[in-house]
Amino acid sequence: MQLSDGTTQPPTLHPMPFTRVEVALLSLVENRLCVLLGKRQEAPYKGRWAIPGGVVRIDLDADLEAAARRVARERLNVSLPYLRQIGAVGGAARDPRAPWALSVVYRALVDAQALAATPGKRLETLGWWPADAVQEAKPAFDHGALVAQAVDALRAEVDRLELPFGFLPPTFTLGELQALCEALLGRRLDKSSFRRRLAERDLLEPVPGEMRTGAFRPAQLYRARSLTN
Amino acid sequence: MQLSDGTTQPPTLHPMPFTRVEVALLSLVENRLCVLLGKRQEAPYKGRWAIPGGVVRIDLDADLEAAARRVARERLNVSLPYLRQIGAVGGAARDPRAPWALSVVYRALVDAQALAATPGKRLETLGWWPADAVQEAKPAFDHGALVAQAVDALRAEVDRLELPFGFLPPTFTLGELQALCEALLGRRLDKSSFRRRLAERDLLEPVPGEMRTGAFRPAQLYRARSLTN
Repeated sequence: MQLSDGTTQPPTLHPMPFTRVEVALLSLVENRLCVLLGKRQEAPYKGRWAIPGGVVRIDLDADLEAAARRVARERLNVSLPYLRQIGAVGGAARDPRAPWALSVVYRALVDAQALAATPGKRLETLGWWPADAVQEAKPAFDHGALVAQAVDALRAEVDRLELPFGFLPPTFTLGELQALCEALLGRRLDKSSFRRRLAERDLLEPVPGEMRTGAFRPAQLYRARSLTN
Repeated sequence: MQLSDGTTQPPTLHPMPFTRVEVALLSLVENRLCVLLGKRQEAPYKGRWAIPGGVVRIDLDADLEAAARRVARERLNVSLPYLRQIGAVGGAARDPRAPWALSVVYRALVDAQALAATPGKRLETLGWWPADAVQEAKPAFDHGALVAQAVDALRAEVDRLELPFGFLPPTFTLGELQALCEALLGRRLDKSSFRRRLAERDLLEPVPGEMRTGAFRPAQLYRARSLTN
């Protein structure tokens, strides 16, 4: 609503939720799917692990994704290449600091080594926790559930062969692709049904003349078909 | 933050987004996928069509889904059986009433006739708009994009054979199931590949002894396998 002095005023007198963004970063560390947690420097949950997050700043952030990128810069000293929104959680019982707290949660699959995150504002230290052991960290707030959602969403994509091509090297053998998918899923895949499903979906194309030679017989190198269109 | 008088105070002095929930209801009307829009009684966008929505009330709503259900009751006079969150949109340019507006968007696939929605608070009239012609309604705010997201999400599920069993009758022939999927997708499906994919996924089981007789040869009736476990 435009006021006569040129400022705007919220269209409601109701108090609004305490609104934050949280960023779940996933990576393979020593061939296991891990999530980046930061140890909190302040109450509530001081000394407990949490996924990095911060308040939406309507004076700074053009939109929700910009808020998530700013929070990642402030907390982790990194620029994130690529983010996917998981969704929003909100309710009266989520955060002892506020009567009602809403978080919009993002996830990204990153190269932990290339990213080189370091603890920023309000975080004492950072740690990569194995996705399947994150509950042992006893995460702050409802962040255990948020991590589980991020991990489930990534694994559902891999299960559907929505492959993380941005995370893969530009060319790879089918064996390398299967090993990557197995590491992300945390379980073994049947080789012949994996290859049959890949072929049916026509996701890959061989790189002409490119073979990888190694201890065993040479293997054809492939790349994502979409990258060449 | 707990204050000495026992009340809580928001943990930040930053102004928070104007926070709403919006509800995209989808249904088959005359065998076409349609979305329910309401004509707005008030500015901004007075007289324009919008998906029903309302402000999150931290004094009334236990969580985001409860907010969406309350808004559906107030705007449409209905109790929604089942909701899925699409996600959150938020930014500085979404709503002329507020400097920064965030909406958490829900969707549901409903039986339009059984639901019997009627215009509630702030809506002049309701209309079911064909999903593929909704842009012709020139929806208010960014609701055209929100409807497109809801339709895309539903169609992606049907494409992956995440079938809307709650929307299907308890038993159905394979021909009826294919016709329903085609109506939701807005395109024809190849009968043999649809049946092969259904069989591979083992989603259905025949109902013993149940056949539908009609103008053509009798057809076996099926039900969702998960419903009997």
